[in-house]
Amino acid sequence: MRKFVGERAKRLIASNTIASVVKFNHHYTPSSPNYCSNRSQLRRLPTSLYSLISSYSIMASSGPTPPVTVESLNPKVLKCEYAVRGEIVSIAQKLQQDLQANPGSHPFEEILYCNIGNPQHLGQKPITFFREVLALCDHPALLDKKETMGLFSADSIKRASLILDQIPGRATGAYSHSQGIKGLRDTIAAGIEARDGFPADPNDIFLTDGASPGVHMMMQLLIRSENDGILCPIPQYPLYSASIALHGGTLVRYYLDEATGWGLEVSELKKQLEAAKQKGITVRALVAINPGNPTGQVLAEDNQRQIVEFCKKEGLVLLADEVYQENIYAPDKKFHSFKKICRSMGYGDKDIPLVSFQSVSKGYHGECGKRGGYMEVTGFSPEVREQFYKVASVNLCSNISGQILASLVMSPPKVGDESYDAYMVERDGILKSLARRAKTLEDAFNSLEGVSCNRAEGAMYLFPNIRLPNKAIKAAEEAKKAADAYYAIRLLNATGVVVVPGSGFGQVSGSWHFRCTILPQEDKIPAVVSRLTDFHKKFMDEFRD
Amino acid sequence: MRKFVGERAKRLIASNTIASVVKFNHHYTPSSPNYCSNRSQLRRLPTSLYSLISSYSIMASSGPTPPVTVESLNPKVLKCEYAVRGEIVSIAQKLQQDLQANPGSHPFEEILYCNIGNPQHLGQKPITFFREVLALCDHPALLDKKETMGLFSADSIKRASLILDQIPGRATGAYSHSQGIKGLRDTIAAGIEARDGFPADPNDIFLTDGASPGVHMMMQLLIRSENDGILCPIPQYPLYSASIALHGGTLVRYYLDEATGWGLEVSELKKQLEAAKQKGITVRALVAINPGNPTGQVLAEDNQRQIVEFCKKEGLVLLADEVYQENIYAPDKKFHSFKKICRSMGYGDKDIPLVSFQSVSKGYHGECGKRGGYMEVTGFSPEVREQFYKVASVNLCSNISGQILASLVMSPPKVGDESYDAYMVERDGILKSLARRAKTLEDAFNSLEGVSCNRAEGAMYLFPNIRLPNKAIKAAEEAKKAADAYYAIRLLNATGVVVVPGSGFGQVSGSWHFRCTILPQEDKIPAVVSRLTDFHKKFMDEFRD
Repeated sequence: MRKFVGERAKRLIASNTIASVVKFNHHYTPSSPNYCSNRSQLRRLPTSLYSLISSYSIMASSGPTPPVTVESLNPKVLKCEYAVRGEIVSIAQKLQQDLQANPGSHPFEEILYCNIGNPQHLGQKPITFFREVLALCDHPALLDKKETMGLFSADSIKRASLILDQIPGRATGAYSHSQGIKGLRDTIAAGIEARDGFPADPNDIFLTDGASPGVHMMMQLLIRSENDGILCPIPQYPLYSASIALHGGTLVRYYLDEATGWGLEVSELKKQLEAAKQKGITVRALVAINPGNPTGQVLAEDNQRQIVEFCKKEGLVLLADEVYQENIYAPDKKFHSFKKICRSMGYGDKDIPLVSFQSVSKGYHGECGKRGGYMEVTGFSPEVREQFYKVASVNLCSNISGQILASLVMSPPKVGDESYDAYMVERDGILKSLARRAKTLEDAFNSLEGVSCNRAEGAMYLFPNIRLPNKAIKAAEEAKKAADAYYAIRLLNATGVVVVPGSGFGQVSGSWHFRCTILPQEDKIPAVVSRLTDFHKKFMDEFRD
Repeated sequence: MRKFVGERAKRLIASNTIASVVKFNHHYTPSSPNYCSNRSQLRRLPTSLYSLISSYSIMASSGPTPPVTVESLNPKVLKCEYAVRGEIVSIAQKLQQDLQANPGSHPFEEILYCNIGNPQHLGQKPITFFREVLALCDHPALLDKKETMGLFSADSIKRASLILDQIPGRATGAYSHSQGIKGLRDTIAAGIEARDGFPADPNDIFLTDGASPGVHMMMQLLIRSENDGILCPIPQYPLYSASIALHGGTLVRYYLDEATGWGLEVSELKKQLEAAKQKGITVRALVAINPGNPTGQVLAEDNQRQIVEFCKKEGLVLLADEVYQENIYAPDKKFHSFKKICRSMGYGDKDIPLVSFQSVSKGYHGECGKRGGYMEVTGFSPEVREQFYKVASVNLCSNISGQILASLVMSPPKVGDESYDAYMVERDGILKSLARRAKTLEDAFNSLEGVSCNRAEGAMYLFPNIRLPNKAIKAAEEAKKAADAYYAIRLLNATGVVVVPGSGFGQVSGSWHFRCTILPQEDKIPAVVSRLTDFHKKFMDEFRD
């Protein structure tokens, strides 16, 4: 649709039919889900033509120009794209409304959301211990009541009391230190130490409302202009491209190698860094997502060392997205934090600037709605850190429930605690089920004609490659869609299965993918597989060259 | 200190003693609380001189340049200042540590924080009903247990069930719609309707992690470059100046008239708008803080109509900071939302772009740590709104506990509910106590030599004017401090009372103020008054001209 509108606008301009342009602006009513893109599409036209259209539109409109139009918004905002909640989600919501209002109106009974890493939305239950502690911290008066002993585990009561004691005045309703409550940062630092075997400093922890605000903060600090670049993997979770666009920097792509299981080759990093330098871009940081999103690979230790050496040599900040650190499914793979890798290489705090992002939204807990997370910030001078602190303090602090949860995630029940056995059953139940779902979906994708899918070693996603027939690519072109978006929309309309087209994450030109989460509950997986398989067969029959 | 460093740097440059510059960079160690400002101060020097210093510093340093230095951070970040958590807070924290480690080391036993609107930090208790509902939503398994009836009020149980039913899958751990959970937005819209007597649309509500992220979002959308200006009151809550700096825009100051109780004169708005236009600034929006922060005034209805007319005529977005809407203490004053004012003037959704910010952090509830709030966004085209939605969606959603709390604040217990009486006792107890504290402090300030203080009609602050003797101003100059900062630091060191100097909020040049919250618990107010009174007398005796 975007392309279509752009093309139409160009044709209109070519024929100088300004009246038609005005009509076109009126024709696509704001209720159309793609209306917004018309003008941003226009924005990409040469400035002179764009101004011509804009001014004629204004002159021809009946009233005065409104104070705020799409054209007068910050162009960085217009440039920003975020595919995970884009057109596909709008269509899915529409279909869901249809099904509610008019059951049987589509050839499926429910929408199967495989588009977003939102486990509890799909029925995953929260970890009981975590929620017990949160409830007690929300309403500490419960701790004084005798009935509470019958309702909560002994260790959740103990933990909640401990946490409340760490909060000045036990006030979970007060702003905290801008980096987060000191006692919780102590717990998190201890958890990092236990994970890595190297010291962690609570003063290096900045608690955040999920990982995203931390990423935005780093982009805000590092990006001065479009001449500053950030090396990002392609495919990538579009938070990075969106945040770089919002902060006016340049996305410097490095391509993961699908043939070697989404390998991250240092030769590719070097090539892209050099190419960027030649364009006058100062590359400031490298983003590594491990385990990968949308690609699901887990980096090998050796590879991580090479990445660290590369950053060290080239003077780059290493931004390590490690939010899926608990989500490892391949028995031969293990998560190693980049901090552990650095320290094991003998690099200390002064040697390499490194930011590790962690979130309560992922792992086995999947507490997306709680918006908790932290950054561990090492290798920056105190004066630079002071600026980080200042930016954090403008936002006062992250939410306290999210802070508490971040501390729980880094310090879950231990052997001997009353909750330990139940916690382990819940945790392992979720992780083992996710591993089974990943394998089932991977096998299903690999059995489809023209589809190949690397295994999900970790994270929550599969990112199968679809070799689409030329006929299908042509049909997509005619529908003014990227070929994988065309496939995904057809899939959604035919089956109710929601996936995100690979074009939303970036991919090697001419290759097509989609991202499918492994999150539908296990009893829904057969439906996902059978609907997708049936659809794919029919699609191939329709378009096979 | 900042000024001092700046002056010193200038002198050093004037004498071309580059070796001394390098020494100066080493002399002020990073552990000094003001170290960070040295370099940002240098940043304000002419570019040529600045480059000279930087390059010499780099040449003279022993190792390679680190990848990230203060000089290589985003200059917008360096420019941003946020006084509420600045030097004064660092000193207070240091004193508090002293007192803990070494009781009796200072002439006071405890720090009395009057610097920040953080009620629960100072002992204000949360509203029981709100916390009951939050605890039940955090741990819905409680709803199935018989003991729960004995622990929670019947209406909190009912409300929690209702809220959970509004959340798809009852999943409080899932990301919600990027604007927030639809059912909660329905509740909030109903609350706004009940407050204003005019319709509110749940689709206009964007739930946010407190008001601050909403303000940042609007600045991000509206500011394209330093040629875009935002009209802000002076004095102002420094979130606005900080956010405008971070987004690279221009703060266009309009001065509140202290003589008329911090009156907001439209003639002043016109004057400043014209002056900005003449400098080539496109003014995009006007910020009105009502009730005022730091000034505590409540706008009169007539005045609000004039402001609306001004925005309408000049094509400005009206950004209405209404987070203190529940905090009204003057019996002759009433809060009117700007939306109600607009609608009562006959302006509908198409006539004026208006954003109203609300927060769970203020009011009688003071739930700062929960980071909840919303923006009601009206008067923008659907295409512009689509861009708002896109930016919201990049951040996924605000935290669900904060969302729930925002709905509770806009829909508290009603007559007949089991919690109603207790709720009213808690609510009125807090509000009446705040009114008493405001009056006591106002009277105390007005009894001091050379101090005059407008009444706190609303909000949580007093902003007394101190006519400092010339000798004190001179002493401050010698100490390289703003005169009110000098006063506040002396006050803090002598008494443990923490206030924020007026220079952090902006004020008419040559006038001096400080912001003092009315939040210390009532039993602490006599200590605040007596310590401040004693200090002020001694200070005046020392410096009286």
